[in-house]
Amino acid sequence: MKLATLKKKGHPDGHLVVVSTDASHCVDASAVAPSLIDALQRWDEVRPALEQLAQVVNNAADRERLGSLPFEPDQCAAPLPRAVQWLDGSAFLNHSHLMERAFNVPPVANLDTIPLMYQGASDDFLGPHDEVPLPDVADQIDFEGEFGVVLADTPMGVSAEEALDYVRLVVLLNDWSLRAFGPREAKSGFGFLQAKPSTAFAPIALTPDELGPDWREGRVHLKLHTWRDGHWFGHPHAGAMHFSFAELIAHAARTRRLKAGTILGSGTVSNADPKVGSACIAERRMVEAVASGSPSTPFLHFGERVRMEARGEQSDQSPFGVIEQTVVQYRRSQH
Amino acid sequence: MKLATLKKKGHPDGHLVVVSTDASHCVDASAVAPSLIDALQRWDEVRPALEQLAQVVNNAADRERLGSLPFEPDQCAAPLPRAVQWLDGSAFLNHSHLMERAFNVPPVANLDTIPLMYQGASDDFLGPHDEVPLPDVADQIDFEGEFGVVLADTPMGVSAEEALDYVRLVVLLNDWSLRAFGPREAKSGFGFLQAKPSTAFAPIALTPDELGPDWREGRVHLKLHTWRDGHWFGHPHAGAMHFSFAELIAHAARTRRLKAGTILGSGTVSNADPKVGSACIAERRMVEAVASGSPSTPFLHFGERVRMEARGEQSDQSPFGVIEQTVVQYRRSQH
Repeated sequence: MKLATLKKKGHPDGHLVVVSTDASHCVDASAVAPSLIDALQRWDEVRPALEQLAQVVNNAADRERLGSLPFEPDQCAAPLPRAVQWLDGSAFLNHSHLMERAFNVPPVANLDTIPLMYQGASDDFLGPHDEVPLPDVADQIDFEGEFGVVLADTPMGVSAEEALDYVRLVVLLNDWSLRAFGPREAKSGFGFLQAKPSTAFAPIALTPDELGPDWREGRVHLKLHTWRDGHWFGHPHAGAMHFSFAELIAHAARTRRLKAGTILGSGTVSNADPKVGSACIAERRMVEAVASGSPSTPFLHFGERVRMEARGEQSDQSPFGVIEQTVVQYRRSQH
Repeated sequence: MKLATLKKKGHPDGHLVVVSTDASHCVDASAVAPSLIDALQRWDEVRPALEQLAQVVNNAADRERLGSLPFEPDQCAAPLPRAVQWLDGSAFLNHSHLMERAFNVPPVANLDTIPLMYQGASDDFLGPHDEVPLPDVADQIDFEGEFGVVLADTPMGVSAEEALDYVRLVVLLNDWSLRAFGPREAKSGFGFLQAKPSTAFAPIALTPDELGPDWREGRVHLKLHTWRDGHWFGHPHAGAMHFSFAELIAHAARTRRLKAGTILGSGTVSNADPKVGSACIAERRMVEAVASGSPSTPFLHFGERVRMEARGEQSDQSPFGVIEQTVVQYRRSQH
């Protein structure tokens, strides 16, 4: 099942729709649940009705008879425009190692046995085609492409073995980052804050079954393609995740329960092979620094576009849809 | 105006009530706004109606005529049982200095000019009399008493001079902490996660005017009293905040807007004078270690009770009500 949230003025949680498998059409789901957060709270109760709507939207005759809309990603908010929790792991060790060097911080002990994870801001997620207003290019504007899972109510102390039972949806996201703040905030001990402006999401949230065999072992086995201003930037494969989502969930729930609607991210998708490129600029700059002594790829300027999309090995399908955004100078009167 | 949230089964945001100034009675506010988060989103629209309810609940005759309930804090959830964002500063430098020593981490640069602030979990706040289920006393269970503000939609780049215009409510909270995770998580660069289980709140959220002169210069000028199992633990004065809430808000909004319902904490209330005691165990242990070479006060055991309450210099009023909770062994079947 594919779900999305349309923007709705005066409704910060937006308006839930069920999207066809080919992402051509959608049907209003508000009679079942007005918003995705409401659906997640009552998932077992609402899931059958949402699945019926999925059957309708996937059948041209039913769609005609019962009513549907063309699916327009530029009308979409993030699947959860705001959430109660956004946790972000760093499950690709290649990324962790490169960022340690980029930030010039000491190596973290037990990096391969204890996941790194920070608590992110969940009050203001950007839609897939929203502008990204930021105050200053001197803050070193970067993108970070990654996958995430959306959880049901998850008990404290859940084991990795049972953790995947609590995964309700899979999402694709761009964890926008401001690298100039990274080193100081990492060294402060308090973690990232000014370094992490609002995160953006692809329009479609999928139930794991929708990914078929590309969802296995608690990992999304798809390539994450990124383009910067129309130029290829990378297509690392997310199957390389060192810690699975199961292990990340168990880590997050070690000392507390996690409430429905919690989003948990994989961290930047990253492969050791430099030929596949990167899902963030900081990584490429560090690869350049190692190869030639200094980085040559600049961080983003205002006006640049970043596009992200997940695709399988053979398939030309795009299960989550596309994130494509332009970074702009923040102006208080406009944003 | 005093607001509180009663627990309501199947409604994770609870049920909004307006509480009398003496905290003896409350009136149902659900016809105005079903929940506090809804009221915060539409504050300018709903505030006049909520103020009318405050007049009703503060007048015995009106109360009789129009209906009210006795105000029962043990029926309360946190004012926001879940929120879109929980940010916690460390605005009392005495606390920051002691915790650097407690965690044995290097001093942070510019501690007195750039606020320390971490992003906390906002999905699961505890009510003032809820049990605190935690997995293991070996995690070094500690409390942290502090004040917080609840914000309206706040623009990116807001200055400290204008930031207080966005404060809607003031709250009192216990930021439960597990000290065993602190040093590793601080050194990881990713900040606190397992070290921060669910945070608890006093029952009453106040509009700043309700505090009169005790709310000034972006600070709460009240003592925060803490008792551990009935024994006095401390009463540091929160006027000693080095960074004001205005400065904390400006710091948090440097690179992004903050959405309505964001809660921003002061960090543990702390005074340099050891005679006033502490609002957390870790501080007292560090004071003991400095004085005698090793700490003598243990962290909490299961079954211990922690009580917190804010009081003014002369007054015996308790504007936020009391947080009084017992720490218990987490059992999956019960919690």
